[in-house]
Amino acid sequence: MSAALQQTIYETLSQLVLIDPHTHINPHSPASKTLADILGYHYYTELAHSAGMSREHIEQPGIDPKEKVRRLAEGLGHIDNTAQLSWLLELAQELFGFEAERVDSSNWEAMYDAALSKMLQPDWEDQVLRKTGLESVFLTNDFDDPLEGFDTQRYVPCLRTDELVFHFAKPTVRNRLQKCSNTQIHALSDLRRAIKQRFAHFKSRGVRACAISLPPNFSPTQISDAVAEQALNRILASNEQVDADSRAVLGYWVFWELAGNCAESKLPFDLMIGVNRAVYPGGVFQGQDLYDSRVSLIQYRDLFNAFPQVTFPISVLASVTNQELVSYAWIFPNVVTNGHWWYSNTPSFVHRDLQARLEAIPRNKQIGYYSDMYKLEFALPKFNMFKRCLSKVLAQHFVIDSRWSETRAIELGRQVLRGNVETIFGFR
Amino acid sequence: MSAALQQTIYETLSQLVLIDPHTHINPHSPASKTLADILGYHYYTELAHSAGMSREHIEQPGIDPKEKVRRLAEGLGHIDNTAQLSWLLELAQELFGFEAERVDSSNWEAMYDAALSKMLQPDWEDQVLRKTGLESVFLTNDFDDPLEGFDTQRYVPCLRTDELVFHFAKPTVRNRLQKCSNTQIHALSDLRRAIKQRFAHFKSRGVRACAISLPPNFSPTQISDAVAEQALNRILASNEQVDADSRAVLGYWVFWELAGNCAESKLPFDLMIGVNRAVYPGGVFQGQDLYDSRVSLIQYRDLFNAFPQVTFPISVLASVTNQELVSYAWIFPNVVTNGHWWYSNTPSFVHRDLQARLEAIPRNKQIGYYSDMYKLEFALPKFNMFKRCLSKVLAQHFVIDSRWSETRAIELGRQVLRGNVETIFGFR
Amino acid sequence: MSAALQQTIYETLSQLVLIDPHTHINPHSPASKTLADILGYHYYTELAHSAGMSREHIEQPGIDPKEKVRRLAEGLGHIDNTAQLSWLLELAQELFGFEAERVDSSNWEAMYDAALSKMLQPDWEDQVLRKTGLESVFLTNDFDDPLEGFDTQRYVPCLRTDELVFHFAKPTVRNRLQKCSNTQIHALSDLRRAIKQRFAHFKSRGVRACAISLPPNFSPTQISDAVAEQALNRILASNEQVDADSRAVLGYWVFWELAGNCAESKLPFDLMIGVNRAVYPGGVFQGQDLYDSRVSLIQYRDLFNAFPQVTFPISVLASVTNQELVSYAWIFPNVVTNGHWWYSNTPSFVHRDLQARLEAIPRNKQIGYYSDMYKLEFALPKFNMFKRCLSKVLAQHFVIDSRWSETRAIELGRQVLRGNVETIFGFR
Repeated sequence: MSAALQQTIYETLSQLVLIDPHTHINPHSPASKTLADILGYHYYTELAHSAGMSREHIEQPGIDPKEKVRRLAEGLGHIDNTAQLSWLLELAQELFGFEAERVDSSNWEAMYDAALSKMLQPDWEDQVLRKTGLESVFLTNDFDDPLEGFDTQRYVPCLRTDELVFHFAKPTVRNRLQKCSNTQIHALSDLRRAIKQRFAHFKSRGVRACAISLPPNFSPTQISDAVAEQALNRILASNEQVDADSRAVLGYWVFWELAGNCAESKLPFDLMIGVNRAVYPGGVFQGQDLYDSRVSLIQYRDLFNAFPQVTFPISVLASVTNQELVSYAWIFPNVVTNGHWWYSNTPSFVHRDLQARLEAIPRNKQIGYYSDMYKLEFALPKFNMFKRCLSKVLAQHFVIDSRWSETRAIELGRQVLRGNVETIFGFR
Repeated sequence: MSAALQQTIYETLSQLVLIDPHTHINPHSPASKTLADILGYHYYTELAHSAGMSREHIEQPGIDPKEKVRRLAEGLGHIDNTAQLSWLLELAQELFGFEAERVDSSNWEAMYDAALSKMLQPDWEDQVLRKTGLESVFLTNDFDDPLEGFDTQRYVPCLRTDELVFHFAKPTVRNRLQKCSNTQIHALSDLRRAIKQRFAHFKSRGVRACAISLPPNFSPTQISDAVAEQALNRILASNEQVDADSRAVLGYWVFWELAGNCAESKLPFDLMIGVNRAVYPGGVFQGQDLYDSRVSLIQYRDLFNAFPQVTFPISVLASVTNQELVSYAWIFPNVVTNGHWWYSNTPSFVHRDLQARLEAIPRNKQIGYYSDMYKLEFALPKFNMFKRCLSKVLAQHFVIDSRWSETRAIELGRQVLRGNVETIFGFR
Repeated sequence: MSAALQQTIYETLSQLVLIDPHTHINPHSPASKTLADILGYHYYTELAHSAGMSREHIEQPGIDPKEKVRRLAEGLGHIDNTAQLSWLLELAQELFGFEAERVDSSNWEAMYDAALSKMLQPDWEDQVLRKTGLESVFLTNDFDDPLEGFDTQRYVPCLRTDELVFHFAKPTVRNRLQKCSNTQIHALSDLRRAIKQRFAHFKSRGVRACAISLPPNFSPTQISDAVAEQALNRILASNEQVDADSRAVLGYWVFWELAGNCAESKLPFDLMIGVNRAVYPGGVFQGQDLYDSRVSLIQYRDLFNAFPQVTFPISVLASVTNQELVSYAWIFPNVVTNGHWWYSNTPSFVHRDLQARLEAIPRNKQIGYYSDMYKLEFALPKFNMFKRCLSKVLAQHFVIDSRWSETRAIELGRQVLRGNVETIFGFR
């Protein structure tokens, strides 16, 4: 009974039209042009590399898309057990009509051609969104993004702030901020004004969230203006040669300032907690980051207390942090759970983490899923994976174990998939 | 087959009469007077608050019980997915005969009245205990509790010691200790004598355990009398203005002294490891504590080695610590597992943690469950939740996977639910 | 369907002939002589001790094997729920033809005699290997093992290096190294030469891996020769009285040197991460070690980056580290997963950790299992436990959820059980 029930729930949930609350889509080129855009996703290049293919072979400058796909296809046999590869097969089947159990040297070209014939169609972007059941897609915008030339109803701006917090000592970052905000930064008050100006710009273009990814050792506290001013002065004098302490101090000040602007602008502040960048510098592009799972939300205690009026949708990189997330969201009104991020985005972690959330956190505080995609084609298989996990928990835990009606379970699924995205990000 | 088998095991285990080895029951008022005593449990106030209701609305001074229930009922729709709310529905059905899928503005008053008509019955306390299948209930007694005016066979004293270890620098705590022990504390020997007197008092009233809850950074070691004496002097001179180090040092000395008294008095020492108090000071009453899951039992290595004759029933707040608990109980004769505490007391964590224990720790070293309740009505749904998890593990892992007979599996369940409570806390 | 499918997969996988890539077998006495060799395994002595039997009773000097078994059998009733005891029952049934639900005072002698009649047969070793389906077994050899007098095809040398890294300050260790390498160690260059000589010796005898177990706080970095030379001088002058820093510094230098020799010798370097030795000094032999689960693979970041040409098969002691292992193996080509170690080697942890690996790491980078046994008889029940977990994941996740054919799932199982051992340790 459980399998059939799960399937019914899955099919019902599949009819929903969704908003994807976190992606890396380029709104000027949202869909793939060739299969190389799909296979070039770091999930495939890093796994092919990890399984034995050299970075030089994968990333050789100047190779054309078809050659890139040919090369990567050689390495896919070693990763055909992975959830990541199952995304490729599912999207190929659902979007290109290309059905196969595996991709290898015998069929990569057929797949390439099938993909290309679809991608060349002028309405490909619309087709993908329609088939996937997506009406809006959040972006990840640099602070100096002009946010022009695209439909901000479909592609919703989100202000990404990692550079301001972690790389302000780089002259290039500073210069970009000065330029886009039309503000010379000589003192802390200038920096404060520049940040404020950026929020105003983003608000004028329909921004729905501010976001940042944070390393495991990040432990923000409020820094006084006087202390921050000194740190700023040292940074302006020494740039990247400045001491680590000054960078950290100013980073915390900027972070706090961002939270304050979120309060004023009534924006949720997405925190993506736990990533260490460039742990493996010899890895492929975007395949170099890892983490230290020894992180605790206790590090954010001051923040959650200081900004009760800001909603913090939180993603954690390691599943071990999920129970803390559940507990903090159970107590703090302004902490909500946000999807299943990166290394925790495979079925067994999703299933486990999701069940722990659904059984203990208020239902209006859970954002089910986001795709984190770079190209539109990936929302379909990723959301489907999540919907399967969700259907399993709804069928087993709610309908069978807790005797809920199917209708009631589906309503919970709907809220987690769509309703909470609307309420938390202010769509209604 | 598995579901039917699980149900049979559950029903058999449900016939046992149990001892609840950890609660916060007030023996002078053990059962609820109105539904407000039930809905006032922090699990509901904190979740309603977390889901959006203001603390001021929930905790407005002077509102009567019925108004309190009316207000909270408004917020229960957001938490009807939680295990915590399922406790309410199950106890309402089993104890008040009030059956409903949800509690909301349409039916809260009917529930209130159904509860009241039961609670007004003069033997309500006995009815609850009988329906729940409970014969004894451990208390949580302040060190200066006179332990008089109640039946200590039914309500078993347990000496709670957090205040002595963590708040001895508060004059109020010290004065209470001086008064109840009839000992002026000028020197370490006085403090030692006062503590000893408290154990004698509790022993004379049938105490079965000493207990304490501990923060994640607690790492007890033996402190010499000379060093402790200096810390005590600084505390006596400065009270709460004393340096943190002196407090910590004297706290470790007191903790060690408590363990020594447990050895002499042949009392188990319940350690509840991992809570940070008042992480969210803006939260509702009892809804402010959280934790840092980065804790290790290696911090208790000296203690376990120093007191081989003391049994330490251990509860861990975060499920991530459960594997360490399993491993330490697997090796150390004096470490036993104790229930599923607070943030780990929801079905998926209970199931996972319980299975890991049952498959690797000697069966005579596992205390299955305690309710942690403040009012008697909660033992029923909480123990039932545990029995469901237990039945699932017994059915799947033992009967189906390991080919045990049903009888044998039930015998293991009985030992974990009842037998070990008797042997570990000295009932036989 | 799932149960039958799982059984079919299990039976097919059971026909494979395997290589056990990590054991503590003594090649001069690989099989047991009496049942005391089986029950003397620390899993039984430590659990019987933990359940209440005194160490003195278990380890009384001079008791004969039969008396030892008689005593331990008295304590097995308390541990009959454990996976560890199920190994005993399964091996007794499969290898001795002794079938029983329990071992206690009523039947221990019959079991003893049944075992003895088998163990006295001259080809017992061959029988065990044949019944288990094992063709080769990795050893754990001290650095000064002459590696003579046994068949190194069947019993494959593995250079264990804990002593060199952690105990070089002990004169006995140093003297053994000087003697076996025929090198007086006065300077760092001597130590380097002695280590190199040991690799040459082991290579000449068919070594397939270098291995080490590491405490949670180990965080290796490259130490310059100049700094290491100073540490060595202090050690040579003070032996075990030397400061902890010098020991640690030289330990890191030796560790790095070992990795360098692995590179030159094309040997995988097995890292077994997370054990604290002698946490419980009052425990039985080999039943004193535990851990602090707060460990991260980020501590090995420099190592993984510095030796891309060395494969690191990694075992983690605590299941909480498994997700990091999955993520590091997903990205780093030279990190592969290796079995399920010790406290994580019970069904629920194996199942959970295995599924997380199979769904996210390239299939050619996963070494399914090793027995870690001291006597040959244990490979059978331990591998069977693993094969049951593996069959469950293959049936449920791959065949049912991912619609793989049974044949394809079995092929993945075969690769994880056998194929990767061959490729990673250079058998083909």
